[in-house]
This record gives sequence, structure tokens and C-alpha cells, in this order.
Amino acid sequence: VETSEEAAVLEANQAFYDAFVALDMSAMEAIWSAVAPVSCVHPGWEPLVGRAAVLESWRGIFEGTAKIGMVVRDVRALVAGATAWVVLLEQIEERHGERAVRAAALATNVFVREHGAWKLVHHHAASPQVLEEAEAPPGGMLN
Amino acid sequence: VETSEEAAVLEANQAFYDAFVALDMSAMEAIWSAVAPVSCVHPGWEPLVGRAAVLESWRGIFEGTAKIGMVVRDVRALVAGATAWVVLLEQIEERHGERAVRAAALATNVFVREHGAWKLVHHHAASPQVLEEAEAPPGGMLN
Repeated sequence: VETSEEAAVLEANQAFYDAFVALDMSAMEAIWSAVAPVSCVHPGWEPLVGRAAVLESWRGIFEGTAKIGMVVRDVRALVAGATAWVVLLEQIEERHGERAVRAAALATNVFVREHGAWKLVHHHAASPQVLEEAEAPPGGMLN
Repeated sequence: VETSEEAAVLEANQAFYDAFVALDMSAMEAIWSAVAPVSCVHPGWEPLVGRAAVLESWRGIFEGTAKIGMVVRDVRALVAGATAWVVLLEQIEERHGERAVRAAALATNVFVREHGAWKLVHHHAASPQVLEEAEAPPGGMLN
């Protein structure tokens, strides 16, 4: 049975993935804390520290992505006072020109509670393991 | 310039790696929070949730490891109130029989402040990328 704080953390976490999939930069800016330090580990990148660097990375990712298919699985939220973190599996389907790539990555998202709202302060996504790579198929999450 | 809280977090983080390298189970038990929920993502494992499961995993790893060479690099501590997290690169050298493997993995460690002490609540180590694999050489961290 999840507590109301866990539910609130899961909601903040889902808002992050909704913004990601929608390539919605305004939503992404609102999700990350504006007062706490923030950091972000994208697969294969050096860790980024600071709101400017983190948001710039998302802007670049969004600008370079036409469409992304992503679902999250096995989502677990843990809460300790004003600290929360979520562990989950990101399942990603990306299309690069005529090729579709399906991959999965474990991720950790850390949140802090600020005036009652859970704000993202750290995202760490491991390097995705490719599950499937093929000519863009007629079907799948991107269609 | 690091704050005194950042210094305290870096000290707790180093104690975790000292316990790891020393294969010291008592130290490991003291480092993980005994009151907050805890979780742990070992490379290639399903995420573990709960103190019993997490400590059992470390006991198993320690029992299955004769000696481990590990150094941490590019260690960054971020603190927001009673929440802290550390991002770093783990450089690992392991010996399996006659073979030595050198690898590196990005890791996130999350801490919460409990009565003035920073306690580990989450460890996420990405799958190491192998940098070098060779017949056990005369030299290196394990010698």
C-alpha cells in the first residue's frame, strides 16, 4: 500500500517522463528544482551539474529528437522525510531515419520536497541495453 | 569551495568505498540507514529494496570476493537540506583466477541526514565498461 507521499512522488516522476515524451521544455523546467543544486547523468555523457547545464542538455536532446517512445516499468518510490528517490526501468524506442531501436535502462530519480511539492534534483539513467534494432517496422510505439 | 555539509557527505561516501574495498560487513551495516527505506542497484541485478535484501547482497558480494581494487574519481557531492547525493566514477580492478579486469562505472549514492549523521539510503552503480582485460599482470592495484 503506497502512502500519500509516495503517490505524490510517483506523480512527480510521471510528470518528468510525460515532459520527456512530449519533448515539452516548459514542463521540464518546472519539474527540476529551481532552488536546490541539480545534476543529471545521461547515458554515455559526463555528469552535468547545475540547472543551466542540465536544462541545456534537455533542450539539446529535445531539439535533436523528432519523436520518442518511452514507457517506464517496475517503478518503485522510496520516501525518507523530505527526500525521495524512484528506481525504475526505462524502455525506450527511438527512430533514427529508417531504423528503429528498442532499448532498456535502469534509472534513479532523486526528488526533494520544497514547500509541499516534490522537485527533481538528480536523474541518472544507465546506458540502455539494446533489446532490438531493425528497419523501422510497421507498428510499435512510434506508430 | 566545499561547505562543511558537503565535506561531511564526502566523508560518508568515502566510508562506503572504504568498507567496500575492505570487504568490511560491520562497517557496511553502519553506513546504510537503519531507519529510512533503502535500495540498491548493483550492475546487472534487479533493484533491491529494503535493508535486509541490500545488506544480504553486500554479504554475498564480500563472501564471493577475495580482494577488490577500487578507486573513485570525479567525486561530486550535492546537498539540499537533509538530502544529499554523490555522483562519481568507480574504477574497479578485479582478479578472477588468472585474469585481471579493469572497468569503470558511473555511480549515484543518495544520503539522508539523520540526527546530524549522513546515512546511505540508495546506491546505483551502472554496468562497468571494461577498460582492459588481461592475464593477471605483475603490478596494478591488486599487487
